[in-house]
Amino acid sequence: MSTVTDTIRNGVDTERMFGTLDLIKVQPELAKFQFRATNRWIDGSHNRSTIKGFYAAGGEDASRSKQWELDAGEPAILLGSDEGPNPAEYLLHALAACLTTSIVYVAAARMVELTSVESTLTGDMDVRGALGVDDEPRNGFERIAVSFRVTGNAPDERLREVLERATKRSAVYDMVTGGVPVAVQVTTD
Amino acid sequence: MSTVTDTIRNGVDTERMFGTLDLIKVQPELAKFQFRATNRWIDGSHNRSTIKGFYAAGGEDASRSKQWELDAGEPAILLGSDEGPNPAEYLLHALAACLTTSIVYVAAARMVELTSVESTLTGDMDVRGALGVDDEPRNGFERIAVSFRVTGNAPDERLREVLERATKRSAVYDMVTGGVPVAVQVTTD
Repeated sequence: MSTVTDTIRNGVDTERMFGTLDLIKVQPELAKFQFRATNRWIDGSHNRSTIKGFYAAGGEDASRSKQWELDAGEPAILLGSDEGPNPAEYLLHALAACLTTSIVYVAAARMVELTSVESTLTGDMDVRGALGVDDEPRNGFERIAVSFRVTGNAPDERLREVLERATKRSAVYDMVTGGVPVAVQVTTD
Repeated sequence: MSTVTDTIRNGVDTERMFGTLDLIKVQPELAKFQFRATNRWIDGSHNRSTIKGFYAAGGEDASRSKQWELDAGEPAILLGSDEGPNPAEYLLHALAACLTTSIVYVAAARMVELTSVESTLTGDMDVRGALGVDDEPRNGFERIAVSFRVTGNAPDERLREVLERATKRSAVYDMVTGGVPVAVQVTTD
């Protein structure tokens, strides 16, 4: 096998991965990141976020050449016209994506070659909370269920260990399960 | 002014809004919703969620005619190639979108006509947590800062009250600040 084949696993350059980890161990100040989004209301339930710039490893990122625009909306029953997935669905996507990438990176680090990672997420919500009809149900999901199917070149037990470690290290799983302090400020002119 | 002009405010049909609220007060079982996402790993840090179906108001939704596909990725410094916004950026978008829609709906209900709602969100992360280099920093954002600019046909104080109420009712704000129980299961064949 060539060196390239040895280094790239699950599409992840493990040599670069271990290099990054070693560098951050020596210079922990490089681990300070800041991600950002800006959002603009369009009409009704329709709004759009723009995502591009971030701070990483001691400076403002210059590697990203493009920006993304993400449209959010609501279905008719929530007074929109499906201008995009709704915000709660975006949260499920964020969680699915983060757990999946964590699985792929942990597997790469542990020499496990994956063949597929698929997941289905459900979030149960009593909308009386968010609609302000009743104070008893919370506004957000009461619970989220995540169902993974992971296959790869390793026994069942090893794949389960990868999932367990990935869950322990996922940034979005940590935030969604544990909460984050959020400071909101507003100007009106 | 025509009836239509009186009913639609900020692009929200307030007559339908109040009708929905009245209905849910009488039949609270209609408030049970379930949102969903399915995700599939593509390669490396690249994965894709599909969003369409949901359960609402006593049955499976039949109103949505389209599905969305959302691509997540990572920038080069996190071993990807910018296949999409990263999962933590999607979480910021979910939060921005939910707060914005809450502001628009609350304003509509309170007869406040908005002219603009813009926001910038930042999330600070020490990536030693998620990369597994150090157990001390958490995996997710240490803090999120949300900065809104809201303008409309109402005095400063009234607009601030709208924001305050919207924050109290936002589903994603509730989840991101308070956390949600997440159950993860896996099959490996």
